[in-house]
Amino acid sequence: MRQAGRYMPAYRALRQKHGFWDVCKNPELSTEVAMQPIRRFDFDASIVFSDILVVPDALGLGVTFAKGEGPVFSHPLREASTLDTWNAEAAMEKLVFVPNAVHALREAIGTERALLGFAGAPWTLFCYCVEGQGSDDFRRARVMLHAQPELATRALSMLADITARLLVAQVHAGADAVQIFDTWGGLLSPFEYERFAIPALKSICDKVQAAHGKVILFVRAGHHLLPHLETLPVDGVSLDWRTPWKSARSLFPTRALQGNLDPLMLLAPDAEIRAATKRLLGEMGDFKRSIFNLGHGIVPETPEHAVDVLLKAIRS
Amino acid sequence: MRQAGRYMPAYRALRQKHGFWDVCKNPELSTEVAMQPIRRFDFDASIVFSDILVVPDALGLGVTFAKGEGPVFSHPLREASTLDTWNAEAAMEKLVFVPNAVHALREAIGTERALLGFAGAPWTLFCYCVEGQGSDDFRRARVMLHAQPELATRALSMLADITARLLVAQVHAGADAVQIFDTWGGLLSPFEYERFAIPALKSICDKVQAAHGKVILFVRAGHHLLPHLETLPVDGVSLDWRTPWKSARSLFPTRALQGNLDPLMLLAPDAEIRAATKRLLGEMGDFKRSIFNLGHGIVPETPEHAVDVLLKAIRS
Repeated sequence: MRQAGRYMPAYRALRQKHGFWDVCKNPELSTEVAMQPIRRFDFDASIVFSDILVVPDALGLGVTFAKGEGPVFSHPLREASTLDTWNAEAAMEKLVFVPNAVHALREAIGTERALLGFAGAPWTLFCYCVEGQGSDDFRRARVMLHAQPELATRALSMLADITARLLVAQVHAGADAVQIFDTWGGLLSPFEYERFAIPALKSICDKVQAAHGKVILFVRAGHHLLPHLETLPVDGVSLDWRTPWKSARSLFPTRALQGNLDPLMLLAPDAEIRAATKRLLGEMGDFKRSIFNLGHGIVPETPEHAVDVLLKAIRS
Repeated sequence: MRQAGRYMPAYRALRQKHGFWDVCKNPELSTEVAMQPIRRFDFDASIVFSDILVVPDALGLGVTFAKGEGPVFSHPLREASTLDTWNAEAAMEKLVFVPNAVHALREAIGTERALLGFAGAPWTLFCYCVEGQGSDDFRRARVMLHAQPELATRALSMLADITARLLVAQVHAGADAVQIFDTWGGLLSPFEYERFAIPALKSICDKVQAAHGKVILFVRAGHHLLPHLETLPVDGVSLDWRTPWKSARSLFPTRALQGNLDPLMLLAPDAEIRAATKRLLGEMGDFKRSIFNLGHGIVPETPEHAVDVLLKAIRS
């Protein structure tokens, strides 16, 4: 959940000198920023520094980050002919920096810590590809599901194919598990999610697990979808901050659960951080198959001190 | 769900000549725009033309709508001293145009159709008051719940008081029922919703029902909160497009349910509109205590023809 990021002064200092894509694409720099939170907080696991939009960029959609404005695509997906230009082999060659970053990070952290790779879920990537920028409802992408279902299904299938390749490459490079971020999954009804999102996710799980990698799935605002994820062979489910841990545990009794402290709690007074942490730990019960994490990305305004308070509360 | 709105050419024509606040505040104009969809589509119920932000504006927060940019507050709520300037009596005097609009609309529609009033939920109003503009996560408001809980509780209580007065005034002016829009309720965890949002909603329900009005509650993206609404004495629950009707019905077997076609389906081909409508009607079963509606606001790009297709599918 943005383990490395702007909440750390060390990260901001490094980013003064290097652009975001430059850090992602240079294994020394990406390892350095990924190691910053490990050195500072001694987390049990490390996650590669990358971005979910590396995939559409490698497919030729031209992704740039306007300062403070989010991503902008120079060539969004609007018609079927665009898909003919998508080439998974060529994209994978461009994306070699991702497994390279995983490999370098594994060298740096050794074998004592878990290492996570990640990618965006096909539906979430589809949202950005179609909209061509951030959005709060991704209206164009959602309409396309019903107005051009063949195009949508083909695009989702192609995105699933390249995402699976990228995740398998990260497993081969040393990742113990991969996390799939379905940031915009929560916009879909269960009917739509089952029809469009789940088949793409299923094919990814099968390929990653065939390569002996574990799969963790995060669906933001996906509480209504949880019962529909049961058929997916994911090893772990990452919960956003609004999902009660106990209801998720009763849905997934045998899988790993990850989450789900509200990252905004880290902007509250220390006593409130401790109280919320204690509540969540209480819900986790015996801690079996439980990974403590935030329930969404840590925000840039977070003081490092708050992370210290959180970790002390967990570890004690 | 924005029954009157930009999807109607007649509405756009009227808005060429009159500003948004001017239409809200003039009973003849607000009745005219509310009647446009009744005349064009012969809906079974009519809803007063207004906006949830009339309340913070009447409290002196200075709400304006920047073109295409959403609301902007000249005096957002940032500290406790601001609350000392809030005066419910004075605000109610300013808000008399709302019951006046309800009264005029009742005169226009007669007694054959149901008439709905509405207001924003205290939590949603609090979000806008604190943030001072739209947001996708209302970070400042959510942090305030934990960093300044006394201030937040006091503000929510004051917002509940004036909202209850406004809704009771609408009932007295002829509304059969009122809808409370908790557009940003879904941002909260059940723990937060129970602590901060529900007490405010409960006090509103009690007052409206004491005045013999019915209460319908809409919580956008609130699937995770539905089990926690059971203690609220609402007469009806309005569902957003992602909540499966059947699961809501099993939670609320004796109450009215309203919803919940995805408004974006109205941008799909006719056959898809018909199929989605048929699916939803099938889920409703015997239609008892069921109000067909959209599951969120109709979008401006919607062709009127699509609404015809929808209504024909329902009525047949």
